[in-house]
Amino acid sequence: MDERDDASLEESLTFAPRFDRDGLIPCVTIDDATGDVLMVAWMNAEALTRTLETGDVHYFSRSRKALWRKGETSGAAQRVVEMRTDCDQDTILIRAAVADRKSNCHTGRATCFYRSVPLGAGPLARALTKDR
Amino acid sequence: MDERDDASLEESLTFAPRFDRDGLIPCVTIDDATGDVLMVAWMNAEALTRTLETGDVHYFSRSRKALWRKGETSGAAQRVVEMRTDCDQDTILIRAAVADRKSNCHTGRATCFYRSVPLGAGPLARALTKDR
Repeated sequence: MDERDDASLEESLTFAPRFDRDGLIPCVTIDDATGDVLMVAWMNAEALTRTLETGDVHYFSRSRKALWRKGETSGAAQRVVEMRTDCDQDTILIRAAVADRKSNCHTGRATCFYRSVPLGAGPLARALTKDR
Repeated sequence: MDERDDASLEESLTFAPRFDRDGLIPCVTIDDATGDVLMVAWMNAEALTRTLETGDVHYFSRSRKALWRKGETSGAAQRVVEMRTDCDQDTILIRAAVADRKSNCHTGRATCFYRSVPLGAGPLARALTKDR
């Protein structure tokens, strides 16, 4: 969210997703069973439409510039349990039932967030802790 | 995350956040006490550095084009409990202790994600359900 004064958008009951200038919107996906944040990926209008229509989570790969149904090669598919949007409708939040909890991340981990960043003064480049 | 083959980045133990071409990185912030996703906002290098150095979550407002310490006007401050990054280091995940659970969102709600999007065929523009 971005602190802006746009009550019409914030209180609207019409879904009007705000894609960025590349036609993309970020999607945060949560494991419905555990509540863990699994990943953040991007959707274009087609990925979002297909997700809504099929219930299978689709993303848009910025590196491959291609629509991508989660799990189509890995088997780690995601079924939408609930989709939400935020106050200014520029983010999607999905609670998903996951087909393979052990490998949601393409690195073979349960979540993409397997490294923590230590607090404290100093340069941004600092040692991470890998715990998964 | 984006399915790319970059093992050096994925397995690296050095924090090397990947800012986008506007110098920003998205940050997902979770309520440490409840696990709820509160918001997604953006950080530039300064916001990220100040967050790491102070433990007070700072964002960069894209609309105001200004650094912003969460809560500086609203009182709804966020203290970092844990910061993580994802496989390709282009997203930040923060678990935060929140000063005012009832108004994390600037609309006066506990979370920015107070509307759900119904599944099903049809146009993207569809009726939302507001439940908070």
